[in-house]
Amino acid sequence: MPEPFTTADFQARMARAATAAADAGLAGLVVTPGPDLTYLTGYLPVNTERLTALVVAPGAEPVLLVPRLERPDAERAAGAEAVRMADWIDGEDPYAVLAPNMDAAGRYGISDNAWAMHLLGLQEALPGTSYASLTSVLPMLRAVKEPDELARLAAAGAAADLTYGAILGVPFAGRTEREVAADLAALLIEHGHSQVDFTVVGSGPNGANPHHEAGDRVIQRGDTVVLDFGGLKDGYGSDTTRTVFVGIEPPKEVQEVHDLVRRAQQAAFDAVAPGVTCQEIDRVARAVITEGGYGEYFIHRTGHGIGLTTHEPPYMIEGETRPLVPGMCFSIEPGVYLPGRFGVRIEDIVTVTEDGGLRFNGTPHELAFVN
Amino acid sequence: MPEPFTTADFQARMARAATAAADAGLAGLVVTPGPDLTYLTGYLPVNTERLTALVVAPGAEPVLLVPRLERPDAERAAGAEAVRMADWIDGEDPYAVLAPNMDAAGRYGISDNAWAMHLLGLQEALPGTSYASLTSVLPMLRAVKEPDELARLAAAGAAADLTYGAILGVPFAGRTEREVAADLAALLIEHGHSQVDFTVVGSGPNGANPHHEAGDRVIQRGDTVVLDFGGLKDGYGSDTTRTVFVGIEPPKEVQEVHDLVRRAQQAAFDAVAPGVTCQEIDRVARAVITEGGYGEYFIHRTGHGIGLTTHEPPYMIEGETRPLVPGMCFSIEPGVYLPGRFGVRIEDIVTVTEDGGLRFNGTPHELAFVN
Repeated sequence: MPEPFTTADFQARMARAATAAADAGLAGLVVTPGPDLTYLTGYLPVNTERLTALVVAPGAEPVLLVPRLERPDAERAAGAEAVRMADWIDGEDPYAVLAPNMDAAGRYGISDNAWAMHLLGLQEALPGTSYASLTSVLPMLRAVKEPDELARLAAAGAAADLTYGAILGVPFAGRTEREVAADLAALLIEHGHSQVDFTVVGSGPNGANPHHEAGDRVIQRGDTVVLDFGGLKDGYGSDTTRTVFVGIEPPKEVQEVHDLVRRAQQAAFDAVAPGVTCQEIDRVARAVITEGGYGEYFIHRTGHGIGLTTHEPPYMIEGETRPLVPGMCFSIEPGVYLPGRFGVRIEDIVTVTEDGGLRFNGTPHELAFVN
Repeated sequence: MPEPFTTADFQARMARAATAAADAGLAGLVVTPGPDLTYLTGYLPVNTERLTALVVAPGAEPVLLVPRLERPDAERAAGAEAVRMADWIDGEDPYAVLAPNMDAAGRYGISDNAWAMHLLGLQEALPGTSYASLTSVLPMLRAVKEPDELARLAAAGAAADLTYGAILGVPFAGRTEREVAADLAALLIEHGHSQVDFTVVGSGPNGANPHHEAGDRVIQRGDTVVLDFGGLKDGYGSDTTRTVFVGIEPPKEVQEVHDLVRRAQQAAFDAVAPGVTCQEIDRVARAVITEGGYGEYFIHRTGHGIGLTTHEPPYMIEGETRPLVPGMCFSIEPGVYLPGRFGVRIEDIVTVTEDGGLRFNGTPHELAFVN
């Protein structure tokens, strides 16, 4: 169990967020339950129809509004002492309670995943305010990880590696995707994850659907199987993909496509360095696959950030021209998807160092053979 | 396993939703992943930064926009054949893709839990549109359950009852709240739940915090313990609370407060009938507790609806003047919370019939004694 983050950590993060908001021309930030609130205060309530919102603004003490019956929990958060807490009770209008803490003519960044009903409530209570999603105005708020966050991400990656090592030993042929997915989930928990976010087992033609989770298909000898699994360990994410073959004699095209994806993944990893744009990572991976003749079958971006969630900025996608910065953490996961036939994807989590890239996953990239 | 809902079921629900939207003066509904989309289409993707949205409008075929890489999953949903499906790929502006399917000057109901970033995207792509949360404009869209939904809720309630029966047999004294909560979670799963939403174990003074989940406090003989647990079984919710005592000689005030809460719960249940307002259910429960001298310690509403989620309209709260309708399902859960001392809450799920109320929980309300 890593050392918990302290009140001072959260105070520093809120101060940094307020400065970033001012630099972006914003009156402040409205942060609702989810990773942004966890990051800024250490408080993790469930996101519900009852408004919980943190207002961070330059030059003002942060205000955390909570439903009164959740206040005891909120007060136990490590960041509670760094905010002024306010509450509201069932029957009150929470937006009217929050309004005096906001600039009635201000523009605010609001959590991407804030509920639409809460945004509409604020827009009605304060018609002079305007809003933009946090990702659009401060996309990199949580993107550069602190050393204690990097340690957690490294530990989550190591746990995912142990999971992969163990899954290679379970039987595949004759079992359903769902059964193998349950093994993956149990292994992630066994290796210290508190939450399993996804356990993709895409066998044979199902592997050609990048977001196929796991179904009732019985895995056969001769199947190519995409395994993509991850979740949260001590609050930070893992996300790893390897593609395995059931048997020992993969068809020539499976081996060729796998080699191509592996080279694309490696080339993108080799391109990681401070100052390189996010889209360049995508371009490098895509160029390898396009040159190999499979460009039209690589149908998603090359990667996404990871931290308190398993999907967050920075995104490795055409059009994302922001530069990589040391401490950023993201996936590199090129893939090729041949409809009706099979899919191949290889994914590692990497971080940007002063010198280049560092992988948080260390298992081999070669096509593994399973039973 | 109950019979799955059919394409015809979803078609009928979408038609009913379109009519309800027109009756409410809306151009249509924008429905994002979550219970509303599940209800209308049977499709349950994860709610992410990638836009998935169903547009339902009077006189038009419903349109479901999905990220292309999730399209194969969307096409497998039972409701897929009742919609026109469209997709977008990474790098495209999904709001611009959706816009031609909407009335550029229309007012829309939007899922409560739609991400703020998606609402902002729509507001920018279609500046002439306006929005209101689905709960504010069509609060009762999912509130009146169909017979096949009632059967699922009854089965979830029965599974919660079995969980309660079994938890009375586990040791409490000397174990942490978290350990008992883990037992509750395991029992819910054992009795057919696929998802555990909450396992509150509020022992001694922790019981006085209505939203305390479960912590490291070691339960003692002489503790009063609030047990509030539930989740989803075959897609529909359970939510039950009972208060137990560790030992056999509860202090007089614990027994008195428990009797008071029990009478309040019973009185509110007895008040359930078609045409009675939601706030009346709250008032009846509150009057009993207020007359007993504990009114200031009943610090939350009396109940909430339940269905595809464990918290939804109708809410049994002062100010909710809509009438109960046969088929509505909700909790009745009065409580008394004495700061620093103990709490008591008793909760059943009930449905409204033509004649009155029917409980989906059948375990005794008396203060149970545990070891």
